[in-house]
Amino acid sequence: MNKRVAIIGAGPCGLSQLRAFQQAQARGADIPDLVCFERQSDWGGLWHYTWRTGLDEHGEPVHCSMYRYLWTNGPKESLEFGDYSFEEHFGKPIPSFPPYAVLNNYILGRAERSDVRKYVRFGTAVRRIAWSADTGRFTVRSTDLAEQTDREEEFDHVIVATGHFSVPNVPSFEGIDRFPGRVLHAHDFRDALEFKGKRLLIVGSSYSAEDIALQNLKYGAASVTCSYRTGAMGFKWPEGIEELPLVTKFEGATAHFKDGSTREFDAVILCTGYQHHFPFMEDELRLRTTNRLWPGGLYKGVMWIGNPNLAYLGMQDQYYTFSMFDAQAWYVRDVILGRIELPSREDMEADCAVWRAREEALADPIQDIDFQTAYCKDLSAPTDYEIDWDVQSDNFKHWEHHKEEDIATYRDHAHRSPVTGTQAPTHHTTWWDALDDSLETFMDNR
Amino acid sequence: MNKRVAIIGAGPCGLSQLRAFQQAQARGADIPDLVCFERQSDWGGLWHYTWRTGLDEHGEPVHCSMYRYLWTNGPKESLEFGDYSFEEHFGKPIPSFPPYAVLNNYILGRAERSDVRKYVRFGTAVRRIAWSADTGRFTVRSTDLAEQTDREEEFDHVIVATGHFSVPNVPSFEGIDRFPGRVLHAHDFRDALEFKGKRLLIVGSSYSAEDIALQNLKYGAASVTCSYRTGAMGFKWPEGIEELPLVTKFEGATAHFKDGSTREFDAVILCTGYQHHFPFMEDELRLRTTNRLWPGGLYKGVMWIGNPNLAYLGMQDQYYTFSMFDAQAWYVRDVILGRIELPSREDMEADCAVWRAREEALADPIQDIDFQTAYCKDLSAPTDYEIDWDVQSDNFKHWEHHKEEDIATYRDHAHRSPVTGTQAPTHHTTWWDALDDSLETFMDNR
Repeated sequence: MNKRVAIIGAGPCGLSQLRAFQQAQARGADIPDLVCFERQSDWGGLWHYTWRTGLDEHGEPVHCSMYRYLWTNGPKESLEFGDYSFEEHFGKPIPSFPPYAVLNNYILGRAERSDVRKYVRFGTAVRRIAWSADTGRFTVRSTDLAEQTDREEEFDHVIVATGHFSVPNVPSFEGIDRFPGRVLHAHDFRDALEFKGKRLLIVGSSYSAEDIALQNLKYGAASVTCSYRTGAMGFKWPEGIEELPLVTKFEGATAHFKDGSTREFDAVILCTGYQHHFPFMEDELRLRTTNRLWPGGLYKGVMWIGNPNLAYLGMQDQYYTFSMFDAQAWYVRDVILGRIELPSREDMEADCAVWRAREEALADPIQDIDFQTAYCKDLSAPTDYEIDWDVQSDNFKHWEHHKEEDIATYRDHAHRSPVTGTQAPTHHTTWWDALDDSLETFMDNR
Repeated sequence: MNKRVAIIGAGPCGLSQLRAFQQAQARGADIPDLVCFERQSDWGGLWHYTWRTGLDEHGEPVHCSMYRYLWTNGPKESLEFGDYSFEEHFGKPIPSFPPYAVLNNYILGRAERSDVRKYVRFGTAVRRIAWSADTGRFTVRSTDLAEQTDREEEFDHVIVATGHFSVPNVPSFEGIDRFPGRVLHAHDFRDALEFKGKRLLIVGSSYSAEDIALQNLKYGAASVTCSYRTGAMGFKWPEGIEELPLVTKFEGATAHFKDGSTREFDAVILCTGYQHHFPFMEDELRLRTTNRLWPGGLYKGVMWIGNPNLAYLGMQDQYYTFSMFDAQAWYVRDVILGRIELPSREDMEADCAVWRAREEALADPIQDIDFQTAYCKDLSAPTDYEIDWDVQSDNFKHWEHHKEEDIATYRDHAHRSPVTGTQAPTHHTTWWDALDDSLETFMDNR
């Protein structure tokens, strides 16, 4: 009997995994039976935009953390697929920082061309995954959300690809329950126009805070104050954005900060990160980690050391995204196909500990990038996944430099493709002036 | 071995159930071992207010549909507990339409006095309830949310008391994904001050729509338009509220309505009801119903006909609330204690069919009230739960009449207690002028 593989989620990681198997098959390999479970009605994971927040039409948590007018915050050349360039997809070179619609079109483009939709069971929520030592298989229980019927099936391998940017981490603050305006987490942020003319407090100092602060100012917020716990982002902000230490309490509309200052606000957006959240995994198989470059318990950052029939994709904090997911998916595929033999549990743990020690010694973003580049190279080396990691790495380092120069203009720079070698053209409009984020306007060469 | 009973939820229904058992015990009965599973950090169910929306601190769906400045929309005398009057709780008679803090204080007051907190396992989400014909027991799997550890236990009886006003029913409309302002469901509505000065569209024509429309106008919305699918609410609205037929589509900020009219809005609140949602029940035990006065499959509106070791509390559309929950809890208790013997499955189904036929013939709110009064009487007759249902019913009928007279003033009327017989005093401030909803201000006799 053919082996059965369950892939949980049809977002970027799940789609990388499907593509990995499909590519092996196209090159003559026998592949296992694949079932990809997707709770949403379409694929794309976080890239499947919805106006909904909170719970969806089936009463399930909304996965989407995407918001309108989002442009990539990293160069597209550093997330490019090794086997499918932007140039191939769009038929011409395009600028380095495209808006949502363009990136989404690219990501889904490879999936559509590789004919993997047939493996995906849409509108199906996985409720429970448990391992049976007796059968040596996993039991996966899922619910067909439209029919509200349950189904239990057995699988030889499970690959968790549900992401870790869709379940918000939401701290509380004294008096926040009496704040007379909207309080939301970045996960529920959809449209900056809601905050036009408003005095906005943003709590947090990572990517969401940075981008949501800038975007709201761009779309007309009266003022944006960012509040940090550990350290300020420290960018050269445009006028209208300031940084203050952590908010200590609210009194009505007034926020008090750790340095004694106070401000009045109309709305609060908590950009306080996300949780790794796997309620559907039996607790012995459940990954518990903060958002970091080397989560523990995963050999090569993917194979669950306690039971290598289980893998987790994309659970790292990320500089690299789609190309790293590919490298992970290709590796997991080759383990399942028997092309890669895993070492003993002890050796896996020892290897994992070496990476953890390296991770703990990292001191700045440039070292972070080098660390994740080394990881991607290590991962892809035994597989047939090919991309020029050094070009992706160089792009990241230039990008870091551009951000430090000017946070409002780093998206106006051009980078080089690690696949085609092409230097990207400069866009017809600077990011700050580009209010229309449609694919048509972006692709218009004029 | 003592029987084990699992109660799912420590909201009003769960607390009625705990009180029912505790009262029997206080009167000398042996009671089973009780475990009440509560996902939230405190009891009260919907009455446990939180500023959070979407997902909570553990990544679980927020249960709360409560909003600030809420005053009861039905006379307190029609929801009064038979065994614990408002007068006993507050030490004096109080007006008929108290704000949130006062009602909450009363509901929790009985629970606190009856020493049932020891039965509640807080911060514990039930993941799965399945029946085993082999053992004749239920397996309940739950997660300790703080520890993220799972636990499986067996129970002889399960009582589902998770409510049906916390999982929103959210329809979609053409163009709503491009509406340039906030779109939310009533479930996520928290603070009317967010909408001060805004032009508000409310979709829906039931209790949420009625109350959220009025409240927003009271707290300063520029205008409120209510959009109905089937029929207008038809109240004599204060200036600033209008009703239009169903919205057909959005174009930017402009909504188009079925009658051809158009309006521009700043925000949209979908008051489009809730789902009966029990993802944790094995699908053969899962109640599937719309919100109606007689859900099918439940003998006496509570006992799961397919397996009467299972009961559901409070699953009806509701005129009666807390006193009906009590009557249900007392009935379920007496079935479990062996004081009431259930008839054969055929007889239960036949009885259920009679109620369903009566329900389907109902033609107006007065008939609805009579129907639910008859149900409550039928339910409480074989138990020792005592209350004057006719007084509660009369109050409801007067209240309906007051609402038709003037939707802005019905809360200024006084009703009679079915427990003490006392006529309520008139409040010191009319509802429309009462912007301070604190317990202290409400209780101040001046």
